[in-house]
Amino acid sequence: MSSSTPNLRAENREQRTDHPTNILPAAVLTVSDSCAKGENTDLSGPAVVDVLTRHKFSVMTTKIVPDDTLAISNAIVLLTDEARLVVTTGGTGIAQRDVTPEATRMVCTRIVEGIAEHMRAEGMKKTPLAALSRGICGVREKSLVLNVPGSPKGAVESLEAVIDLLAHALQLLAGNTRHN
Amino acid sequence: MSSSTPNLRAENREQRTDHPTNILPAAVLTVSDSCAKGENTDLSGPAVVDVLTRHKFSVMTTKIVPDDTLAISNAIVLLTDEARLVVTTGGTGIAQRDVTPEATRMVCTRIVEGIAEHMRAEGMKKTPLAALSRGICGVREKSLVLNVPGSPKGAVESLEAVIDLLAHALQLLAGNTRHN
Amino acid sequence: MSSSTPNLRAENREQRTDHPTNILPAAVLTVSDSCAKGENTDLSGPAVVDVLTRHKFSVMTTKIVPDDTLAISNAIVLLTDEARLVVTTGGTGIAQRDVTPEATRMVCTRIVEGIAEHMRAEGMKKTPLAALSRGICGVREKSLVLNVPGSPKGAVESLEAVIDLLAHALQLLAGNTRHN
Repeated sequence: MSSSTPNLRAENREQRTDHPTNILPAAVLTVSDSCAKGENTDLSGPAVVDVLTRHKFSVMTTKIVPDDTLAISNAIVLLTDEARLVVTTGGTGIAQRDVTPEATRMVCTRIVEGIAEHMRAEGMKKTPLAALSRGICGVREKSLVLNVPGSPKGAVESLEAVIDLLAHALQLLAGNTRHN
Repeated sequence: MSSSTPNLRAENREQRTDHPTNILPAAVLTVSDSCAKGENTDLSGPAVVDVLTRHKFSVMTTKIVPDDTLAISNAIVLLTDEARLVVTTGGTGIAQRDVTPEATRMVCTRIVEGIAEHMRAEGMKKTPLAALSRGICGVREKSLVLNVPGSPKGAVESLEAVIDLLAHALQLLAGNTRHN
Repeated sequence: MSSSTPNLRAENREQRTDHPTNILPAAVLTVSDSCAKGENTDLSGPAVVDVLTRHKFSVMTTKIVPDDTLAISNAIVLLTDEARLVVTTGGTGIAQRDVTPEATRMVCTRIVEGIAEHMRAEGMKKTPLAALSRGICGVREKSLVLNVPGSPKGAVESLEAVIDLLAHALQLLAGNTRHN
C-alpha cells in the first residue's frame, strides 16, 4: 500500500501512449475460437498489423480471444485504455458464435454507422457477400473500435477502405475544438 | 393425455422441414389490416411465393396477419420453427401502423444491416421512395426473417435484390463450420 | 387558475399549425454550445431556413440550444408539437459533446434509416468525411425530425439531398390511408 507501484504503472502507461504527432497508437484483437485454442495460426491479426503500420499507426498490443462476448468486450475495454484505434478481426458474420459487433456495442458510447456502411459498400464492389458482414465502428472515450472480418483478405480490404476516415475521426475525437 | 398426438405432431413437423439439399423451406407472412379482414385480396403474398419458388425455395406456409406488433412477432416465431426463410410483406413504411420492422426486431437475436442497406440501394435505382422502406433482415435461431414492402412490385423487386445473398447466408447459418 | 389562458393558448397553437395544403410548417433547431452562449453567430440555422422556404416549407420557429441531450430532446418535443418537420443542425459528429442523434432517438418512435444512409451516400460524392456524420431521421407522432451537420455547407447539402423524400414521407404520415 505504501509502494509507489501504482504511480509507476500510471507513468508507464502514459509513456506507452506517448507518441509523435503523426503516429497513433493502435491495437489488434483477433477474435477466433480456433486461434485462441492454438488449433489455427492467426493470419488475419498480422495482416491487420501490416496495414496499420503502413498507414502510420504504431501497433502496441496484439491479443487473441475466443468468440465470447465477455472476453471480447473486456479486451476492448483494456485495449482502448492505451490505444486510440482498436481493430478487431473475426466474428462479424451471422453464424451463432459471431458476436463481435454485439460485444463492441456493449462498450462503446456511440456508433459511427457511416463507416460500417462504407466498408460494406466498398466490399460489395468485389463480392456481394460483403453485405453479410455485420462489423461496426464505435467510439469509446477518445478511441475508435473497428470490426473487420476474420479472413485475411476481408480484414485487409475492409480496413483499407476506411483507414483514412479513421485517421480523420481520431483527430476530431482528440481535438474536441468545435464545442469548447 | 395418454394420446400419442404430441409425438405424431412432432414427427409431422420434422417431416415438413425435411427437404432435398438444394430446396430450402420458406414461409410468407402478409402483414395487412385490410387483407386480414378480407376487405382486400392479398396480391403481394402470392407474388413473393412466386419469386421464392423460382429460386429453389419451397414455400410451406403462407399466413396473413393484421398490422399488429404482437400478431406479427408471434407469427414469425411460429414460422421460423419450420422455415429457414420467412419473408414478410407489408408494414415497412412510416405510417402509424407500419410496425413490421419493430415486430421483427423483437424476435431476432441479430440484425444483418447490410441486407436492408442493399435492398434500399437497389430500390433507389428505380425510385427514390425506396429510401423510406424500413424493412430489415434478422436472424432467429437458424432462420432468416426478411421484411419487404407491401406493394407486389416493391415486394418482388426487394426480394429479388437480395435472394442470392439470403441463400448464401442460410448456408452459413446451417454450417457453422468456421467456429467449431 | 380560473383564467381562460390555457384554452386560448391551445387555440393559438391550433392556428399556428393551420396552413395551406402545399405549405408544411417546419422548425429549425440549431444545436451549438457557442451559439447558445452568444459567442458565435448562428449561420447554419438561417441557411437551413432558406432551403426549407425554397421548398415550400413555412418555418414557424427557430431555436438555439447547447449540445446537451436533455435540452435538445425537450426542444424537439416542443417543436414537433407545431411543426411537421423539425430540422436540427449541429452535434452530429463524433466529438464528446456531439449528442444530437442520441437526443433525437430518445423522442422518436421510429427511425427511417434509409434517409440517413442517403444523406451520407450523397455527401460522400463530395467529401469522404460525410461518412462520419451520425445524423438520423426519426418519426415523432405525425412529424419528422432530421439531423444535419453543423457547418452551413454540410447542413444545406444534407438537407437538399433528402428534402423531396421528406415531403413525400410527410404525406404518408399525414395520410395513413393504406392501413385504415
